[in-house]
Amino acid sequence: MEEGAIQRRPVTRVTGRSSERFEDAIAVARALEIRVDGRALSVTLRTPGHDEELALGFLASEGVVRRAADVSAVAATAARHRDEPDMLDVTLAAGVPLDWSRLERHFASTASCGICGRAHLESLHAGLSPVASPPRWDTAALLALPARVRESQAGFEATGALHAAVWCDGALEPRVSREDVGRHNAVDKVCGALLREGRYGAGEGLLWVSGRAGAELVLKAARARIPALAAVGAPSSLAIDLAATAGMTLVGFLRDGRMNVYTGEGAA
Amino acid sequence: MEEGAIQRRPVTRVTGRSSERFEDAIAVARALEIRVDGRALSVTLRTPGHDEELALGFLASEGVVRRAADVSAVAATAARHRDEPDMLDVTLAAGVPLDWSRLERHFASTASCGICGRAHLESLHAGLSPVASPPRWDTAALLALPARVRESQAGFEATGALHAAVWCDGALEPRVSREDVGRHNAVDKVCGALLREGRYGAGEGLLWVSGRAGAELVLKAARARIPALAAVGAPSSLAIDLAATAGMTLVGFLRDGRMNVYTGEGAA
Repeated sequence: MEEGAIQRRPVTRVTGRSSERFEDAIAVARALEIRVDGRALSVTLRTPGHDEELALGFLASEGVVRRAADVSAVAATAARHRDEPDMLDVTLAAGVPLDWSRLERHFASTASCGICGRAHLESLHAGLSPVASPPRWDTAALLALPARVRESQAGFEATGALHAAVWCDGALEPRVSREDVGRHNAVDKVCGALLREGRYGAGEGLLWVSGRAGAELVLKAARARIPALAAVGAPSSLAIDLAATAGMTLVGFLRDGRMNVYTGEGAA
Repeated sequence: MEEGAIQRRPVTRVTGRSSERFEDAIAVARALEIRVDGRALSVTLRTPGHDEELALGFLASEGVVRRAADVSAVAATAARHRDEPDMLDVTLAAGVPLDWSRLERHFASTASCGICGRAHLESLHAGLSPVASPPRWDTAALLALPARVRESQAGFEATGALHAAVWCDGALEPRVSREDVGRHNAVDKVCGALLREGRYGAGEGLLWVSGRAGAELVLKAARARIPALAAVGAPSSLAIDLAATAGMTLVGFLRDGRMNVYTGEGAA
């Protein structure tokens, strides 16, 4: 975990018999305003740390940037008052198009989760062309994944309040792990890290998430061309539909040596 | 659960030894566009059902309406294509002010969760005046609450993908229960139901939520003047700060006969 992601706070633990005061580990949540070329685009409530990756992953997920070179500078400003957000100013490289009028219509009202808050709903399925040759996954390796990603949940272990996202390579080796109070932020941070490594859109690997397989996570994985999403929890109907459109393998309830496969032939 | 909230979908259940095809209960998620006086305000990904309460609760949470009489008509339109959102048109009563320019600045970019996506962050703490005389809660009754609200989680039991929110009266009697794929939507639906009953802003009762105590849920409870929030999961630092500002009792990890009290003297 990053420094600043966890605070000690006083808590009273109450049971039927006793009440004791102690200091507990609490997940820090702070607002971050993502700005592009000097203009506010979105605010997200996030775990401080990996902010640049968060912004990159968010902008990639929304189609504004495609590679790390599309960004020429990033400047962070910490809030001076608790009612202000922290700020991250992203300056796009020369020649990277940014259609603010489109953003005004479709995007400025987008929540970081990628769906909620979008005042005008673009076609969610549009642009989700199926992965050319979806990989086949080794069942035993998939079922063994929970034990391998456990160490990526240090913050959850400490606070109970963080979501984790882990990108694993084609051999299901965990490569990029991030935690955040917002599950879409954890995925954006992973996507931002992939972008920096030149792996965003490469069509490889699997994204593991610690909670439910929400539609917004499938959407982010699909836009990153990650061909599989595996979740500890349940998917929604829209998550299944989007995964099917994108030709992705969607796995849910991956725990205790079992899993449910909702889409994709890759885990048979 | 409402009809339409759950679908049967084919799933392959895989274990180390076997693989079987079956039909599982899946939580339906569909986009709903909330429109006010003919203009799109927000889109949320929600569990179909109780849409009018969802819109009322959302608008109340954002300060647009204060009582049921502030709305003169509500019209629902189901989407005809999977890429379109369902729509709910809210017509405000004559004389109810609606400052679209403020909405453009502060609100059109708001996600339904109330924080994420807000392109310009208003002071989160502003307007959260402490409850005048916070109630004292009976510890034994609070610890017994999980067993009493269990029946409100029928959809979760079936799908594993729904969040529940329950408003309990001052005697901790469960009165309004709603489930949704989005936890902020479950709370908005409860708030909308309270609004209809004339109880929104009445300063009574307790809100129980099935997951984590996120800051956006504390914010919605505080704006509804509900003096206590009790969660099965953990709070974030901002959730604790907002609850303290609002003079609310904030309880986390309420399960298995114990709880953590983060703010408020009401549970000692």
